[in-house]
Amino acid sequence: MYRKEIKVLDCTIRDGGLINNYQFGNDFVKTVYRAACDSGVDYVELGKKLAESDDYTRDKWGPWNFCDDDDLRGVIDSYPTENPPAVAVMYDVGRVDVAALQPADASPIDMIRTACYVADIDKGLDLVKRTKDLGYETTLNIMAPSVAIETDLVEGLKQVNEVPELDFLYLVDSYGAFYSEQVTAYVEMYRTHAPSKELGFHAHNNQQLAFANTQQAIIDGVNLLDATINGIGRGAGNCNLELLLNFLKNPKFDVRPIYKAIQEAFVPLRQEIEWGYNDIYGVSGTLNQHPRDAMKQRANTKVQDDCYDFYVESKRIDDAGVS
Amino acid sequence: MYRKEIKVLDCTIRDGGLINNYQFGNDFVKTVYRAACDSGVDYVELGKKLAESDDYTRDKWGPWNFCDDDDLRGVIDSYPTENPPAVAVMYDVGRVDVAALQPADASPIDMIRTACYVADIDKGLDLVKRTKDLGYETTLNIMAPSVAIETDLVEGLKQVNEVPELDFLYLVDSYGAFYSEQVTAYVEMYRTHAPSKELGFHAHNNQQLAFANTQQAIIDGVNLLDATINGIGRGAGNCNLELLLNFLKNPKFDVRPIYKAIQEAFVPLRQEIEWGYNDIYGVSGTLNQHPRDAMKQRANTKVQDDCYDFYVESKRIDDAGVS
Repeated sequence: MYRKEIKVLDCTIRDGGLINNYQFGNDFVKTVYRAACDSGVDYVELGKKLAESDDYTRDKWGPWNFCDDDDLRGVIDSYPTENPPAVAVMYDVGRVDVAALQPADASPIDMIRTACYVADIDKGLDLVKRTKDLGYETTLNIMAPSVAIETDLVEGLKQVNEVPELDFLYLVDSYGAFYSEQVTAYVEMYRTHAPSKELGFHAHNNQQLAFANTQQAIIDGVNLLDATINGIGRGAGNCNLELLLNFLKNPKFDVRPIYKAIQEAFVPLRQEIEWGYNDIYGVSGTLNQHPRDAMKQRANTKVQDDCYDFYVESKRIDDAGVS
Repeated sequence: MYRKEIKVLDCTIRDGGLINNYQFGNDFVKTVYRAACDSGVDYVELGKKLAESDDYTRDKWGPWNFCDDDDLRGVIDSYPTENPPAVAVMYDVGRVDVAALQPADASPIDMIRTACYVADIDKGLDLVKRTKDLGYETTLNIMAPSVAIETDLVEGLKQVNEVPELDFLYLVDSYGAFYSEQVTAYVEMYRTHAPSKELGFHAHNNQQLAFANTQQAIIDGVNLLDATINGIGRGAGNCNLELLLNFLKNPKFDVRPIYKAIQEAFVPLRQEIEWGYNDIYGVSGTLNQHPRDAMKQRANTKVQDDCYDFYVESKRIDDAGVS
């Protein structure tokens, strides 16, 4: 597949940090940044940019949850290169402080991605406007559309369409519940109700479909694609960047630096933290569930592989109904 | 996805046996058979049916490489049920003895699947004719079409089309090299040149696409689908049966017995033998390679995760050319 408009965003540190409270060492982040530079990806997301508080400290929640300018510059300056990827960070609605944000031309950050649920699209768009006013490229990542009431989602998409400050609207398969037909259907819905927006896609690998669904998004005309090195990310993880670069034929991409980073930094990391497909996340995905129950099951070594019990119990709760 | 014509073939023992020389214990095979019965799959393939010889013995190569009638009956009789799946075994061209085969009505076997490379389609079709003459349902599984010369493959497909004794023609992604667009293109090719044949599809999971490609085959109208419990199979394994049953909406299927078998029999087995996606098989798949080099790499614990070295060396050999 080759289409010159396609851009790739490496969200390794941001999504991977959800596993370990953003406690990546500086060397690891530098390795990821260098791999992103050398591979030719268009964007690299180095964490979240949340507001610090007495309850929410760097020590406990990790430096890459806050992405101070000094931390980011330390990484970027460690590998000067001619054509570096744009640097992105993520905003969570209700947990950020836009007033403390520098204008883009005084910041190491190029793009701010705002994540919100459907109910918070208003608040998300407010952040989008304010970050665009400061000169940043902007995205809105609407989480968990697979459990949204469709009329709410459609109303939100129509609002999104009216906000010129938004550069990219993201379709996000938060629960790893989509098959390719859902990717196509949601892309069509997003395009129908927000026709002015360029689309992005962010997959999860609960059903071994993150890479396949990302391909489907490409086929459906989506041009901004999230992926992570080795598929690292919360729960079942994300679309593997190396698989995606293998698929994309654009000669601007080089997969070798990604395999190098895996061999040198991710293979050792796999001894410390877990990510990727397993049976429990498969059940969670097919039932279109929030991954919290699956993560709880995986965290308990006594039952972490009891996929039958997990399936039956999850179904029992579902089937009992809430009428 | 629901289409009443869709049939599912569980090839857990046959493809899984490639990992451990078919040394599954009787209890394990019975567990798989019972799960197949209870899940409502249409076929269960319990091994290969090769000819024994002094060099090729049951002791060394495992009972399920030979599938004696007594072994099969021992399994089938262990779980009498009203609507059992049809029992399949696999024939490899050049390694079987049709003369020793009972007529189907005196045998526990219902279907014989003949596997061959493109160069051996003639020989494969000869076996198909002879097994059909004995009353068996028949398939021809053409291996490694992704490295066949297209004119040879097309010629073979035309021969296949002229053999009324063949019930199903299989598209097989032996190297796990297909993206969904290749599935569609090959299905179209097979249908164009062998229009009289109902098609089957057999995937490998080198690029995390076995399940996704099986979905694509369904979308493209293929009605006989291979899958294995927990994705067990040589190298990166196959399409996970549990994921496939989750996807298929036909109420005749029940995924719970599959999850039960995984929890009780496959989780312990994973401590003994390895299968499933990893970085090395990902490289092998994207380069459309025979899995032998990847399997060798995985068998050497010192280098088993050295995906960068494996990629670079594989590419070096490729790029050196053979002109």
